[in-house]
Amino acid sequence: MREHDQMKIPCNPKNNNVWILNIGTELLMGVTVNTNASWIARKLAFLGYNIKRIIVVPDTEDDVKDEIKRGINKNAGLIITTGGLGPTYDDNTAKFISNALNRKLEKNKEAYQMVLEKYRAMGEQLTPYREKMAFLPEGSQPIPNDVGTAPGFVLCEQDTLIISFPGVPREMKSIFENYIEPALKKISNRILIDERIVIKGIKESSLAPIVEYLAKKYLNAYIKSHPKGYESDNPVIELQITVTTRNKEEGIKLIEEIKRELYKRISQ
Amino acid sequence: MREHDQMKIPCNPKNNNVWILNIGTELLMGVTVNTNASWIARKLAFLGYNIKRIIVVPDTEDDVKDEIKRGINKNAGLIITTGGLGPTYDDNTAKFISNALNRKLEKNKEAYQMVLEKYRAMGEQLTPYREKMAFLPEGSQPIPNDVGTAPGFVLCEQDTLIISFPGVPREMKSIFENYIEPALKKISNRILIDERIVIKGIKESSLAPIVEYLAKKYLNAYIKSHPKGYESDNPVIELQITVTTRNKEEGIKLIEEIKRELYKRISQ
Repeated sequence: MREHDQMKIPCNPKNNNVWILNIGTELLMGVTVNTNASWIARKLAFLGYNIKRIIVVPDTEDDVKDEIKRGINKNAGLIITTGGLGPTYDDNTAKFISNALNRKLEKNKEAYQMVLEKYRAMGEQLTPYREKMAFLPEGSQPIPNDVGTAPGFVLCEQDTLIISFPGVPREMKSIFENYIEPALKKISNRILIDERIVIKGIKESSLAPIVEYLAKKYLNAYIKSHPKGYESDNPVIELQITVTTRNKEEGIKLIEEIKRELYKRISQ
Repeated sequence: MREHDQMKIPCNPKNNNVWILNIGTELLMGVTVNTNASWIARKLAFLGYNIKRIIVVPDTEDDVKDEIKRGINKNAGLIITTGGLGPTYDDNTAKFISNALNRKLEKNKEAYQMVLEKYRAMGEQLTPYREKMAFLPEGSQPIPNDVGTAPGFVLCEQDTLIISFPGVPREMKSIFENYIEPALKKISNRILIDERIVIKGIKESSLAPIVEYLAKKYLNAYIKSHPKGYESDNPVIELQITVTTRNKEEGIKLIEEIKRELYKRISQ
């Protein structure tokens, strides 16, 4: 790992709505579990983002273009893609994004240097398959991949920020944590507070009217019951109270108020 | 577990294309990992189905309706939903599907009996929250939930088969394995054969032209390299060869032929 220059995001996303697209036919065969999606969703949720869709899509052009365009049309501020940046013939995410946005796919000088240096350090030449990883949509900014060969990239389409990561989890996480997370943190002004309460011995269907009352009273919070045991003989409910806020103290106060009201109603 | 009557699927899906919709805002917060999707995808892939999308969608009406309609318009033969069948106020999948298909949401007599018996066995009465689980889209066939209270259901919209499961993995799996899998097995005439070959010491970018050659020569197989080690100093590639076929022997023969050609080209 080397010292990182701080990365600058090329534009502020127009809103906090996120679409996550995981590109790869292998994810649709149930062989590879899509751990990237929940890892990214959790990271972004704690940065105050609101994830609207997670979509796993085959690595075919029409499907990828369709979902990229739909994300833009459905008002996503941020579109994250994973997969399809590597050297193999079916790694075509950069090309598909270019075509979806009517941009040229071009050899990015900075990305080319990154790829060149990686193989030079291994004592290897570039081949067309390796060079392909340096071809990005016009106007992209490449993101260094400290643990692999394929750079990520980021671009702005009007005020939608599109960020593309390799699909290998280790590489995606490295790029996210070293470059994207610090940059997004700077432009986000919200945080998420998530509290869990375990309630034993009350059926979810009995708790339901209380949860509904609370959820409708406290519209700024996300209140949700998760059944963990068996409804019949051993009910265990995990109650989630989640608040996204600009002010941490206010968020904590709100959660405390909801909990007081919850306990009062349960004991009635 | 009781002896099951064989369930009959109400119509044959018009094709093998599947959309999986996982409904639930909590899945979009990255807190709950969406294990249902890959579990179902794997099961269906091995029954010869072709999964085209996995979509995680918030439990809001417009979003769910949008994705249901899109699946139908994009020619899905089978749409699977998980989540939103329980007793809480935000469990509205049956209502949203009804509205997407312009069907009435109605109290299903068979589903009502199922729910009634569940609570009777616990010595409990039905409440409106519990009764809600018996309201299904007009024309639905409920599916027994042997380990929980919310029935699943299945319906046909023209020749698209829609199957809805509860989101609790234990309940989803029970319904799938006890009722849906045997029924789908009967109407499917294809199987999937999946073989993995581990290749050490060759970089993915060096293997890429061989993989491309094979993939383009054998269009009936899905051939894909998965990097497992580090490209630089310790490359490990898992090569996936997957064949969906009506004839097992032919499938095995095809895989053997691809492997012979692979080894020949690697050793050149």
